[in-house]
Amino acid sequence: MIEVQPLDPVMVDSLRRITTATLTTVLLKKGLRNVWMRGTRPFQPGQQRAVGRAFTLRFISAREDLATPASWSSPISTRAAIEAMPAGCICVAGAMGVTDAGIFGDVLCARMRKRGVAALVTDGVVRDSEGVLSTGLPVWCQGTTAPASVSGLTFVNWQEPVDCGGVAVYPNDVVVLDQDGAVLIPAAMVDEVVALGQEQERLEGWIMKRVNNGAPLPGLYPPNAENVAAYEADRALDL
Amino acid sequence: MIEVQPLDPVMVDSLRRITTATLTTVLLKKGLRNVWMRGTRPFQPGQQRAVGRAFTLRFISAREDLATPASWSSPISTRAAIEAMPAGCICVAGAMGVTDAGIFGDVLCARMRKRGVAALVTDGVVRDSEGVLSTGLPVWCQGTTAPASVSGLTFVNWQEPVDCGGVAVYPNDVVVLDQDGAVLIPAAMVDEVVALGQEQERLEGWIMKRVNNGAPLPGLYPPNAENVAAYEADRALDL
Amino acid sequence: MIEVQPLDPVMVDSLRRITTATLTTVLLKKGLRNVWMRGTRPFQPGQQRAVGRAFTLRFISAREDLATPASWSSPISTRAAIEAMPAGCICVAGAMGVTDAGIFGDVLCARMRKRGVAALVTDGVVRDSEGVLSTGLPVWCQGTTAPASVSGLTFVNWQEPVDCGGVAVYPNDVVVLDQDGAVLIPAAMVDEVVALGQEQERLEGWIMKRVNNGAPLPGLYPPNAENVAAYEADRALDL
Amino acid sequence: MIEVQPLDPVMVDSLRRITTATLTTVLLKKGLRNVWMRGTRPFQPGQQRAVGRAFTLRFISAREDLATPASWSSPISTRAAIEAMPAGCICVAGAMGVTDAGIFGDVLCARMRKRGVAALVTDGVVRDSEGVLSTGLPVWCQGTTAPASVSGLTFVNWQEPVDCGGVAVYPNDVVVLDQDGAVLIPAAMVDEVVALGQEQERLEGWIMKRVNNGAPLPGLYPPNAENVAAYEADRALDL
Amino acid sequence: MIEVQPLDPVMVDSLRRITTATLTTVLLKKGLRNVWMRGTRPFQPGQQRAVGRAFTLRFISAREDLATPASWSSPISTRAAIEAMPAGCICVAGAMGVTDAGIFGDVLCARMRKRGVAALVTDGVVRDSEGVLSTGLPVWCQGTTAPASVSGLTFVNWQEPVDCGGVAVYPNDVVVLDQDGAVLIPAAMVDEVVALGQEQERLEGWIMKRVNNGAPLPGLYPPNAENVAAYEADRALDL
Amino acid sequence: MIEVQPLDPVMVDSLRRITTATLTTVLLKKGLRNVWMRGTRPFQPGQQRAVGRAFTLRFISAREDLATPASWSSPISTRAAIEAMPAGCICVAGAMGVTDAGIFGDVLCARMRKRGVAALVTDGVVRDSEGVLSTGLPVWCQGTTAPASVSGLTFVNWQEPVDCGGVAVYPNDVVVLDQDGAVLIPAAMVDEVVALGQEQERLEGWIMKRVNNGAPLPGLYPPNAENVAAYEADRALDL
Repeated sequence: MIEVQPLDPVMVDSLRRITTATLTTVLLKKGLRNVWMRGTRPFQPGQQRAVGRAFTLRFISAREDLATPASWSSPISTRAAIEAMPAGCICVAGAMGVTDAGIFGDVLCARMRKRGVAALVTDGVVRDSEGVLSTGLPVWCQGTTAPASVSGLTFVNWQEPVDCGGVAVYPNDVVVLDQDGAVLIPAAMVDEVVALGQEQERLEGWIMKRVNNGAPLPGLYPPNAENVAAYEADRALDL
Repeated sequence: MIEVQPLDPVMVDSLRRITTATLTTVLLKKGLRNVWMRGTRPFQPGQQRAVGRAFTLRFISAREDLATPASWSSPISTRAAIEAMPAGCICVAGAMGVTDAGIFGDVLCARMRKRGVAALVTDGVVRDSEGVLSTGLPVWCQGTTAPASVSGLTFVNWQEPVDCGGVAVYPNDVVVLDQDGAVLIPAAMVDEVVALGQEQERLEGWIMKRVNNGAPLPGLYPPNAENVAAYEADRALDL
Repeated sequence: MIEVQPLDPVMVDSLRRITTATLTTVLLKKGLRNVWMRGTRPFQPGQQRAVGRAFTLRFISAREDLATPASWSSPISTRAAIEAMPAGCICVAGAMGVTDAGIFGDVLCARMRKRGVAALVTDGVVRDSEGVLSTGLPVWCQGTTAPASVSGLTFVNWQEPVDCGGVAVYPNDVVVLDQDGAVLIPAAMVDEVVALGQEQERLEGWIMKRVNNGAPLPGLYPPNAENVAAYEADRALDL
Repeated sequence: MIEVQPLDPVMVDSLRRITTATLTTVLLKKGLRNVWMRGTRPFQPGQQRAVGRAFTLRFISAREDLATPASWSSPISTRAAIEAMPAGCICVAGAMGVTDAGIFGDVLCARMRKRGVAALVTDGVVRDSEGVLSTGLPVWCQGTTAPASVSGLTFVNWQEPVDCGGVAVYPNDVVVLDQDGAVLIPAAMVDEVVALGQEQERLEGWIMKRVNNGAPLPGLYPPNAENVAAYEADRALDL
Repeated sequence: MIEVQPLDPVMVDSLRRITTATLTTVLLKKGLRNVWMRGTRPFQPGQQRAVGRAFTLRFISAREDLATPASWSSPISTRAAIEAMPAGCICVAGAMGVTDAGIFGDVLCARMRKRGVAALVTDGVVRDSEGVLSTGLPVWCQGTTAPASVSGLTFVNWQEPVDCGGVAVYPNDVVVLDQDGAVLIPAAMVDEVVALGQEQERLEGWIMKRVNNGAPLPGLYPPNAENVAAYEADRALDL
Repeated sequence: MIEVQPLDPVMVDSLRRITTATLTTVLLKKGLRNVWMRGTRPFQPGQQRAVGRAFTLRFISAREDLATPASWSSPISTRAAIEAMPAGCICVAGAMGVTDAGIFGDVLCARMRKRGVAALVTDGVVRDSEGVLSTGLPVWCQGTTAPASVSGLTFVNWQEPVDCGGVAVYPNDVVVLDQDGAVLIPAAMVDEVVALGQEQERLEGWIMKRVNNGAPLPGLYPPNAENVAAYEADRALDL
């Protein structure tokens, strides 16, 4: 089983200040177009941003001999997986986009919260929405349903590579969550992406001021040579 | 035409206190995995739970010679169907998941409300969302649209077996609605499901307390022999 | 390039008072069943109605040699398109229903707002949802995403006929937006549709009063000869 | 239960000579755009055309307490429905487009063939494809599967209005089947559609000759006044 | 890595004589409704039946830093997986239903054939269809495409539980393939399913004879007490 | 209107000998992953390969006031578009994947054939399949239907950039068609792609021989340094 690496708190703090929109632009320029997990939205409007390393869960379709209430007591179960989650991780549950079987309800979310899990992300859904919200665990998902996971899904294992919303997620990749959803940063690229993302945020702020002052877009966004020079001059002055 | 059986108010009251999540768990243990209607959500956040017997409506695709404004005056019309609805029923409209033709708008919802219909559930959509909300009729649906039903659907009849969101609904089956959507209980199983559901709610409450006190999940949820004994002891003391 | 015709402010004002539900009923009676753009919802609850002539944008799928950050500086770019938009127009962006590439973020929406664009409608999504909301531009779309347009779409041109949500939109057609979404009125039919729509709204208001007073639906909605006479009598008295 | 009206053999013979492509063109000119059943193809390449009145079957989603092998012995079963089918009818089975539960296998198809059913049409699938082919019953469907109907569908009844492939089919409507699929002609329009269809076939034959001789399309297809005159002259001479 | 258990040749021989349609009926009666892999068809019409234990491959979505031509040389690659396949196994490749990236072409299929793999089953597609057909490897899939696997998929590993066409497949489960597609038999149930399947085939043959002689269906299929007695009498005589 | 550039016959001849599978591998190595048009298959099994420059047609959704039989006589019509097609071109019709309205039938295909069009490719469907096949025009499409284009589509124009099956196609791009479907080569990259494709075909042939002789895959496909040397030695000897 893959050990979970803690993410440097300084890095967490830096990533909290970069939007997922900016991160995808930076990753696109590095050649990665497929890093946004489809079908995951903040479960509650106004939910705070979350950042952490991925702790993965994998589900496949239900088979009546495997996906049973009895399976919840198995050593390979969602219950055991939760007990293996370290504080600060982001639980990424690949649920094949299934929307009629809820992977977790109030009890499991309450336990994740107790263990310090930073957030739950899934391309599936949760169940017992009032109960889940009452736990305070930040959740990104497709929505809510009534049926239990076993009515449509078989839990396979944790800390394997998973597909979540059409994105390949490996344990220890970094996940950033905001109002636009969930974005993956490959573990090996985190430092570079943060540096580029901070610079991109600064540039976009400078451009936005000019747009608010009535400047037209061509030549400004992206900036031509003249505007690059103006930006760099302002930046040197820390404007 | 099938007569609508009133649902015992005691039963209504009991079902209001059991979540649809719990009901689906109980039904799964009885062998029913397919009782949650896909694509129906509360139309207004925070809408109250509703319980009642199903009064069904059936729609099929539109045909330009049948699905016309003139059809609204026919003896077989949604208008006539509404006049046949008894107070307390849940109107279940099978609309084949169509999202670009609204089965009802403000006028029809207002009339259903006047007749004491407990709620409207559909795998389709309503139209004139502001008007519908102003009637106060609780609605579970996929959302809202502008076009009338006849632009995409032909109304066939009422009180026939229908498919709503991939669930087979027969007149007089019981429907329970909450934030997680709409769940069907077959008419013949209602008493047993209520009894099991009440017990399941009690057990989950007991488990949740322990989780909130920091107990790990394995052995607790579901409970092993030791925890079953502890639960039963507490239950005897009504804790 | 097609010149944008201004829409008479009197017409704008009249259309603001007719719901899209009523407009689709009127258009259906004129033989048009396909005028509601699928997959576009108000981006913010409670957004005000908007009316204007369509200014169209066309996107197709991304090709890595065409859909690049560098393309944002091209003379044929979304930036250039925005500079061609006249005040009061509705920007209709045909994005093939793509939900994993956001056509616009905060900077472009801010510029559209500055230029007096009445609203943005798309069957795709926007990105940087907090930024977009902060610009105050009214948006109808499928939702939000993180990735930029070029990660999934190639911008082709503006003021061409486009498909938006399964509706054929030509430059200068009129678009009306409310809580039920976006409805197209062919440019040649605007005067007639407004006249019929005003009358339909008046009739529906009269019917709604009777329903609220307990009248049953058959014979009332739609009205039979007797109710037509009653309505016309009341109308003559301006009741 | 609706009685099945026999279709005049002369009419059957006439309809066998008109393609479904021509019939849809004629029906479009009469205002009907939605008469072609989506998802039904000839099960065997080169299958002969079939024509007859619709005898309908209706399926909804499976519910484990209803859709059981025991249900096959019920008085309301596909078995009983087949025994009610008259010779020459077209069995139209509305199966909600389900492709993972086969509505019929070899035994039922063999019995339908024995009873003189002209063809089976469904927006679902059959099962045991080799067995079905060996019965010789002409079938239009989405394909084949292994599981039985009850693993995904509940049989409701026969001779009700049904939705088949997005088309509203009423008992006694006429269905025509060829390589392009299945087209519905409303019962009340059959005579007119046949007359117009025969004339359309004649005209298209005349046009095709000219195209084969190298004539360009504009002015020819559809014919302008000059070509209409030429066609009518040739037609008078029976060329 | 899970060792592959050989399947007894007698069992292979027995299963070759039972259709997948019959197997699904038997499994349904044992409570398993979800054993048929959606989206897998014989790649060549008339392909012979195949039977064997599952050897699984798992793919997830492509990520540009992982799914590269260079990855084909990695120790964890489809190439290495093929070299681990034992003769007689059925390769079951879970490809998430992706149809625009072909998991294997002619070279890999040729090598699988050389190694004695009994068949390839996938809910995805192959590529270079002429080349694949020329290898003689029996394939069940959704069809064919031109692009390589890495244009849409990342290969993860072999001999893990996988989802193939909505069915949970574990290494060493048994897979049976015929014209109706691919059916899974859980490893623990094979003996019982074969016994029941042989009996079901015998009964269905007896029924089919009666249908061919003109017997009506009710009471015969399924047989009532009288027909059960008749069947058992005939069976005792081996008729 | 964009002039159609003829494609050098030598280039056509070279491209006829490279499979679309090989072309997509070459294009992937150049950074293009999205060049295969989804949903287009050879309409007739065994259809010969075709190569040519794209001549594009664009369709959007039907609107009842625009998509009429009368529109077939308009100067902007499919008829006029066909008369503008040069011999040797590949007609690429972007039909938004619509499968219930056939873009062309026998008459239009016959005329295209007369004009020397090399092939028709569409992500939609044709109609009157027997008629279309009888014209001999090679067609790649999703299949066949009965209804005319105007029942679901509005024709917009020709020689514009179009989306065909999720691929951005510009006039004069090169299209190659075989049993695996339709692949686009950007106009600017044709020479390089042909050179690389020829080399790739040669290498794959060399590898296939080794596989057929029993060589294992690792180190061979793709070749490691040793096998690259062996290949180059053989290549120098033209083996």
